Amino acid sequence: MAIEPTSFLYEHDRDTQVVTITLNRPDRLNALTFEVYDELRRTFYALDREPGVRAIVITGAGRAFCSGGDVEDIIGALFERDPEGLLDFTRMTCDLIRAIRLCRRPVIGALNGTVAGAGAVIATACDIRIAAESARIAYLFTRVGLSGADMGVAWLLPRIVGLAKASELLMTGAFIGADEAHRLGLYNHVVPDGEALAEATAMARKLARGPSYAIEMTKDALNREASMDLLSALENEAQVQAVCMLNPNFRESYEAFVEKREPRFV
Amino acid sequence: MAIEPTSFLYEHDRDTQVVTITLNRPDRLNALTFEVYDELRRTFYALDREPGVRAIVITGAGRAFCSGGDVEDIIGALFERDPEGLLDFTRMTCDLIRAIRLCRRPVIGALNGTVAGAGAVIATACDIRIAAESARIAYLFTRVGLSGADMGVAWLLPRIVGLAKASELLMTGAFIGADEAHRLGLYNHVVPDGEALAEATAMARKLARGPSYAIEMTKDALNREASMDLLSALENEAQVQAVCMLNPNFRESYEAFVEKREPRFV
Amino acid sequence: MAIEPTSFLYEHDRDTQVVTITLNRPDRLNALTFEVYDELRRTFYALDREPGVRAIVITGAGRAFCSGGDVEDIIGALFERDPEGLLDFTRMTCDLIRAIRLCRRPVIGALNGTVAGAGAVIATACDIRIAAESARIAYLFTRVGLSGADMGVAWLLPRIVGLAKASELLMTGAFIGADEAHRLGLYNHVVPDGEALAEATAMARKLARGPSYAIEMTKDALNREASMDLLSALENEAQVQAVCMLNPNFRESYEAFVEKREPRFV
Repeated sequence: MAIEPTSFLYEHDRDTQVVTITLNRPDRLNALTFEVYDELRRTFYALDREPGVRAIVITGAGRAFCSGGDVEDIIGALFERDPEGLLDFTRMTCDLIRAIRLCRRPVIGALNGTVAGAGAVIATACDIRIAAESARIAYLFTRVGLSGADMGVAWLLPRIVGLAKASELLMTGAFIGADEAHRLGLYNHVVPDGEALAEATAMARKLARGPSYAIEMTKDALNREASMDLLSALENEAQVQAVCMLNPNFRESYEAFVEKREPRFV
Repeated sequence: MAIEPTSFLYEHDRDTQVVTITLNRPDRLNALTFEVYDELRRTFYALDREPGVRAIVITGAGRAFCSGGDVEDIIGALFERDPEGLLDFTRMTCDLIRAIRLCRRPVIGALNGTVAGAGAVIATACDIRIAAESARIAYLFTRVGLSGADMGVAWLLPRIVGLAKASELLMTGAFIGADEAHRLGLYNHVVPDGEALAEATAMARKLARGPSYAIEMTKDALNREASMDLLSALENEAQVQAVCMLNPNFRESYEAFVEKREPRFV
Repeated sequence: MAIEPTSFLYEHDRDTQVVTITLNRPDRLNALTFEVYDELRRTFYALDREPGVRAIVITGAGRAFCSGGDVEDIIGALFERDPEGLLDFTRMTCDLIRAIRLCRRPVIGALNGTVAGAGAVIATACDIRIAAESARIAYLFTRVGLSGADMGVAWLLPRIVGLAKASELLMTGAFIGADEAHRLGLYNHVVPDGEALAEATAMARKLARGPSYAIEMTKDALNREASMDLLSALENEAQVQAVCMLNPNFRESYEAFVEKREPRFV
């Protein structure tokens, strides 16, 4: 089945094997609707195995990356729901984060501007974040009366910035600037405004030229070893690496080395 | 039962709903006695559910935050104990840290000066730390012949500053300055000497104006998801957030937004 | 049985009780051979209990710390192996990391120069890293077609630098300089070129003068509590510390304090 979302832009560059997803409601700072949530998660589940895809970039149109759930489209509608209906919604938003994390291809966030609420969690679920200088970020759930633990961010954020700053950011919902997010290890790189997408795309292309099976196994290990003990992780990596050594990419790397050329990985 | 500790200062501001605990043996750099330990843990257990409390600040009188267990009161006495008596003591000190972490209200450390030994672990168990420039910190257990793993700090510290710096700080017991503690992510903010309590109180008041149930659930998620796998954490947050959406604070936030005013959270 | 490795230098200073291991194939940037791997792991397993050893330094001869598995000795030979033979190799390399982490004596990496591939994982498994300014580091496995998760580094690195930077470093295999590695918390200290070994040795001697049993228990707690919940960790530390209080080092510390002299720990 073709991946043909209608609520955001989707571009698959068959040449570089990079997919670019662009949230595209710039007049609403790319606020998420029920439809965007649902199409995003279906897209990431499909991208896990879509042929000809080796890296994914997610960005926003206009001056924001994503301002979170749309106040008019989503928040108003939630007041009409009963407990089961609310759980359907929260499980759906969590399922989007699950889809991003379990998508074996690396996902790079090109944070072109403000990152807030559910948009901040989507950004935090990416493997790598390249942010514009103006890309301030806030997990502002408590400011709308909700738990700072939303869509798995109370699991993700402490593992990225440490428990102290995660506690503050999730309890207060305060914005921090791009420089502070970089200092904390949340943003991998900060670039001038207008350059985040280009830098993220360059990194995605670089990863797409890498050994795809090996990079997928790297992401899988980072996901699963987060809740493993060291000895189990060691055995996991012994088994994973033995299989990678049977992959043609390992020999290709050696032959390229001998022939003094760049390897051509599958 | 009223919370009326006698071995430290206890102030409950009914207006702001902030409790301030002040270690108050300034001539001994606020060294801990058996009585202080015991009253502190009973106080934190009570504060978990005490009516009219929404945030807690802990600080020290004089020029130190806390210098750890009192050499004369505690350390000398421990030499008289048999193994079971020693385990009674170490379980009691660990129980204080358990009480701080399980207290659902956010706890902010106002680190007014030197932070050492058991005092450093108490500070590390707070959710957020605001420190004075002079607030150097050391986990100096190995320097008195004891394990650097004391009162849960070998669990807490790596999750805040990472395993490399935690290993060094716990093995050597060396002091680091406030700037370094801030760089490592251990201190959330560093302020000029004399301002830590005021800054911590300002943050506590801000949190106290926030949605109390939602902030409690945030702390609970941070505590429990530290030892969860990602998929369990996602389901936990889906369930927690669905309940928070039934809380009147969520609707209040929306109505305040529509009416262009500050929300009044319960 | 005596520890007498032949594929690297081994020096046991009986006076300071510090062992220094020097990778010694400087013309090959200290690339690892099958023999070096095997002797290293046997050495670390033996050092766990070797009498008269209280701290260990590992460094490299010449201008590199270690460039990883030797392309000629190891990588070529691996192409001849069947799946079981490859698993024998990957389990052996993982076993070296297991030996370093489970060695109860603290291990300090003196990173005198370039740190790459398996050499980077060996460095990452040390408790503390002192690096020269020129000691750039790369986990370059994906660049040779292999999984970035190798020898347990997908478990270790996120716990040191956070998940975001770990993901980037392991997926891209890119080098970072010593300053960046310090900023991320990977290098504990950076010193001028030529001084890493001296600084690491000074720290090792300091740790060797510390309470050996207590420091061993600190390392054990850091290892095991990484995959424990907080409440289990608290009980673990209560039990560990009660035993440490029965150790003569605790009383020695007190007596030295009273007598205003340095303690003499066993």
